[in-house]
Amino acid sequence: MPRGFGCASRLCGLKLTGKDLALFASDVDAVAAAVYTRNQFPGAPVVLGRETIRGGVLRGVVVNSKVSNVATGDAGLEHARRMARAAAAELGTDPGRVLVSSTGVIGVPLPIEKIEAGLVGMAAELCADPLVGARGIMTTDTVPKAISLDAGNATITLVGKGAGMIEPNLATMLAYIFTDAAIAPPELDRMLRAAVHVSFNMLSIDTDTSTSDTCAILANGLAGGVEEAVFQEALTAGCIRMAEAMARDGEGATKLLRVTVRGAAGEREARTVAKAVVNSPLVKTMAYGADPNVGRLLMAIGKCFDVPVVPERTDAWINGAAVIAGGTRASFEDAAVRELLTGATVDIEIELGQGEARATAFGCDLTEGYITENAAYYSS
Amino acid sequence: MPRGFGCASRLCGLKLTGKDLALFASDVDAVAAAVYTRNQFPGAPVVLGRETIRGGVLRGVVVNSKVSNVATGDAGLEHARRMARAAAAELGTDPGRVLVSSTGVIGVPLPIEKIEAGLVGMAAELCADPLVGARGIMTTDTVPKAISLDAGNATITLVGKGAGMIEPNLATMLAYIFTDAAIAPPELDRMLRAAVHVSFNMLSIDTDTSTSDTCAILANGLAGGVEEAVFQEALTAGCIRMAEAMARDGEGATKLLRVTVRGAAGEREARTVAKAVVNSPLVKTMAYGADPNVGRLLMAIGKCFDVPVVPERTDAWINGAAVIAGGTRASFEDAAVRELLTGATVDIEIELGQGEARATAFGCDLTEGYITENAAYYSS
Repeated sequence: MPRGFGCASRLCGLKLTGKDLALFASDVDAVAAAVYTRNQFPGAPVVLGRETIRGGVLRGVVVNSKVSNVATGDAGLEHARRMARAAAAELGTDPGRVLVSSTGVIGVPLPIEKIEAGLVGMAAELCADPLVGARGIMTTDTVPKAISLDAGNATITLVGKGAGMIEPNLATMLAYIFTDAAIAPPELDRMLRAAVHVSFNMLSIDTDTSTSDTCAILANGLAGGVEEAVFQEALTAGCIRMAEAMARDGEGATKLLRVTVRGAAGEREARTVAKAVVNSPLVKTMAYGADPNVGRLLMAIGKCFDVPVVPERTDAWINGAAVIAGGTRASFEDAAVRELLTGATVDIEIELGQGEARATAFGCDLTEGYITENAAYYSS
Repeated sequence: MPRGFGCASRLCGLKLTGKDLALFASDVDAVAAAVYTRNQFPGAPVVLGRETIRGGVLRGVVVNSKVSNVATGDAGLEHARRMARAAAAELGTDPGRVLVSSTGVIGVPLPIEKIEAGLVGMAAELCADPLVGARGIMTTDTVPKAISLDAGNATITLVGKGAGMIEPNLATMLAYIFTDAAIAPPELDRMLRAAVHVSFNMLSIDTDTSTSDTCAILANGLAGGVEEAVFQEALTAGCIRMAEAMARDGEGATKLLRVTVRGAAGEREARTVAKAVVNSPLVKTMAYGADPNVGRLLMAIGKCFDVPVVPERTDAWINGAAVIAGGTRASFEDAAVRELLTGATVDIEIELGQGEARATAFGCDLTEGYITENAAYYSS
């Protein structure tokens, strides 16, 4: 964790095993910015969080997993406020300086008493290992996710969770970013949005936009100022690595899918096609089965009705091997492409031959594991 | 089959077993209309078919399964023309009066010689059982699909295939409709589009829009005129039943999902929400697992960013049981809803409380079977 930040996690009784409660804190007030889900049924923590972030200053973030506190009405909002108050009391700050998040099943009341009791004494356990905090926010993630990078003299640490119900769409899944760089509020907000635009907003596990998506950044300034370009580059790189980590650990996933579209007429077109390909169930199952059924790439490009394509200028590659040339199947050995598809990362590149714009989308394959996990998520 | 129509199917060697070639014919010229896929990489038969249907008159339809003749360039178009010529020679008509379709894997050359040889003598085998023709157009379908209905004195017979790569979007999967009613060309086209709008265009198995979708209707007039309202009602009912049959037999599906949205501000809004819910992988796996995780309905409604919702006016029912009331989880017994979800049909009704518009979308659950089938579709 960057200078002045710490985190802790506990099992407060929402889950049977593992950790279900995380606390992240800065020793001093930090400038903060956040983006949230565009889903029209946002969870109570998102409603409260939009209010909290208007203050622009945070001391801490408290997160529970297992129950998302979504579709819980006025009682849910009161539970979110109680969670902020309990964490603020523990940190010795104002409830308006604590960001609250909840993730897990929708439509179930939050067991707020367990959380309040669980928070007592957590401040004494704050440590510098971000993986400790990451463990407290996991739902179906198979590994905790934290990334630290240098940005000049400062450090940026990202802690996130992903797994399912993920197509963020102008927000993101749960991701918290901590830095000791000194950055003014408007720049912090602008840089966060720029990084999210090319990372979490290009991530999709299953086309389903969560009601809890939140991405927040806290900058406590303890490392002093950093050149904006240096910070932006590190922040964007960190967000992309976190988005890739979430995709690779998507529910049931065995592979990271990275779809880059170039030669598009504009950015909107590049992003639309990249998202359509990374989301296509038939492209995802092709990757899973290492089946060289590459005509499906054309299908997925061609179903973007609001992006005109020119078939004879459309080419595609899988992990560097040409599979589509001029809108038809390129000449290649099935066995060679099958071999390329067996790796842990499938890079699909698409050239539209129409302009200079490009975009990359992040996703994963679709496997029996996704089905098994989601056919009994509520009951298990 | 209606008066004057017959069909036949054969195994010409594209598949190892089953049937892979179907011929449908009218004894006399029939008025015809058709709609096609909006995918921007249409197969060669779709390109040729758009040209053919401009003539407005058909004597027959020839269809092969296993290879779709898509992404095959100029050679593919020539193969489609040869297929029309071979069928026309067999039927004693002009190639411009034969509609050609191909369905199956994308990007593989069509074995045209096998099809030409296979067509020889098929006219002598034409029979009145539409299931015979339906068998020749199956790919991953588990059952052949044909429906016959009365429309006044006339008969309407629909023959179709479905299974995967299905979100038609202003066209449909392969569906051929035969009637002995006498209908003028402009009315036939208009009535076909009206029926498709509420049936095949509201069908989605997996959000992937096929490059081969075709729906054509042939009216040979042998039963004389029929009142337009009577014909439209029967045609629409037949198309909806065929769409439901396709959904129920979607790749890997165990259940038909029918999502009705009512109280929408307009038809676009109703259709958008119905499609989003029927396509949500998390709603589909909830149905598969009979898991009463009904908060996912709110998630899927709320991710339609271009359809404003009013949470407190949003209600939902599963097979008649209230599960969402005023944007939050209704009070219900998990076991009761689990029981309702175990049937072969899951009816989801959603009330948006904003207006009078309504729409119904047709889909299926998402199971391990879909994954298994599509992870090795090309190789198997």
